[in-house]
Amino acid sequence: MSLSLIPGQKLIAATHNPGKAREISALLDGRFEVVTAASLNLPEPDETEVSFIGNAILKARHAATKAGMTALADDSGLSIAALNGDPGVYSARWAGPDKDFTRAGEVIGHKLRKAREELGDAFTLKAWFTCALAVAWPEGPAAVFEGVVHGEIVLPGRGDKGFGYDPIFRPDGYDTTFAEMDPNAKDAISHRHLAFEQLRAALF
Amino acid sequence: MSLSLIPGQKLIAATHNPGKAREISALLDGRFEVVTAASLNLPEPDETEVSFIGNAILKARHAATKAGMTALADDSGLSIAALNGDPGVYSARWAGPDKDFTRAGEVIGHKLRKAREELGDAFTLKAWFTCALAVAWPEGPAAVFEGVVHGEIVLPGRGDKGFGYDPIFRPDGYDTTFAEMDPNAKDAISHRHLAFEQLRAALF
Repeated sequence: MSLSLIPGQKLIAATHNPGKAREISALLDGRFEVVTAASLNLPEPDETEVSFIGNAILKARHAATKAGMTALADDSGLSIAALNGDPGVYSARWAGPDKDFTRAGEVIGHKLRKAREELGDAFTLKAWFTCALAVAWPEGPAAVFEGVVHGEIVLPGRGDKGFGYDPIFRPDGYDTTFAEMDPNAKDAISHRHLAFEQLRAALF
Repeated sequence: MSLSLIPGQKLIAATHNPGKAREISALLDGRFEVVTAASLNLPEPDETEVSFIGNAILKARHAATKAGMTALADDSGLSIAALNGDPGVYSARWAGPDKDFTRAGEVIGHKLRKAREELGDAFTLKAWFTCALAVAWPEGPAAVFEGVVHGEIVLPGRGDKGFGYDPIFRPDGYDTTFAEMDPNAKDAISHRHLAFEQLRAALF
């Protein structure tokens, strides 16, 4: 085997989120027959790793092993310098079971005020979005790709496009938050876009 | 770029252990010009991940990024079922700065006696050795390969060949521990061998 993907082959999108599965399919230019982990009744593994790459590999390998088919998984989130990289791999968990990112933004605001007091002049609003993608082959190997966009936290958040932490993140070189950008404009510079560019260059 | 290695290319063995670097070079059939992270004065990163694959990627990416060159790293260890997978990624750390694996074996014996009391009939001596290999390209992508050998803990340990936890591990299907085996016989069935077989199949 070689670490590549063959146009038209079946590929599991190792996610139970239908929106994410559609997004993955679109980002793969429709080149593959994408099936979701949910449609195959694959159980969702616990995300026990401490890095985006670790969790992406864990999810992709889990699906590839269970289904005997090549699988693609992503793991992504927001890391904030003054919070030692938090929420990081816990980005989704900070929003709780209700996926309440307004509440998560308030928690971040509270923690940043405390960090500002503690860090004084060393305090910054620097933050970065990471997207890790993993492709796992049923024979065992896996490949990983990572995209990172650096920027700053904006509080209170601005904009109602996008999702998740998009309203509180302004990428470097732009005046607008991710949630104020036209979705196409955001997609063209996003961490997910960068990760998929790497994947396409290596595997297509 | 594609995820492959070109015969004769330079490859960093992302380890500061000269023995490991020689072993990696030999396992690569002398196909590449292997240079060590130590000879390039690359700093050693902290192994902060909770999985073998996570740590192998961390070390390989760190070297590839710092040196702008393709890098190979390994991470391996012994996991014991009755100890919830410990020592696992902490295998080397349990032996302390003096790399005293006799002492580490005694600690394991003590913990296993406690586990036997707690688990009763559910107690087993099942264990497995894992070797994770990661190749990281300076452009960002990485590929991972994993070999696992299942077996049982033998206490007290037997044999004086091999190294590390070899005396206390008997692979399934054999009467001898890894440390009682001829090195060539062990190398032919080892977790490291299996991981390199995967790597060779995918990247050579």
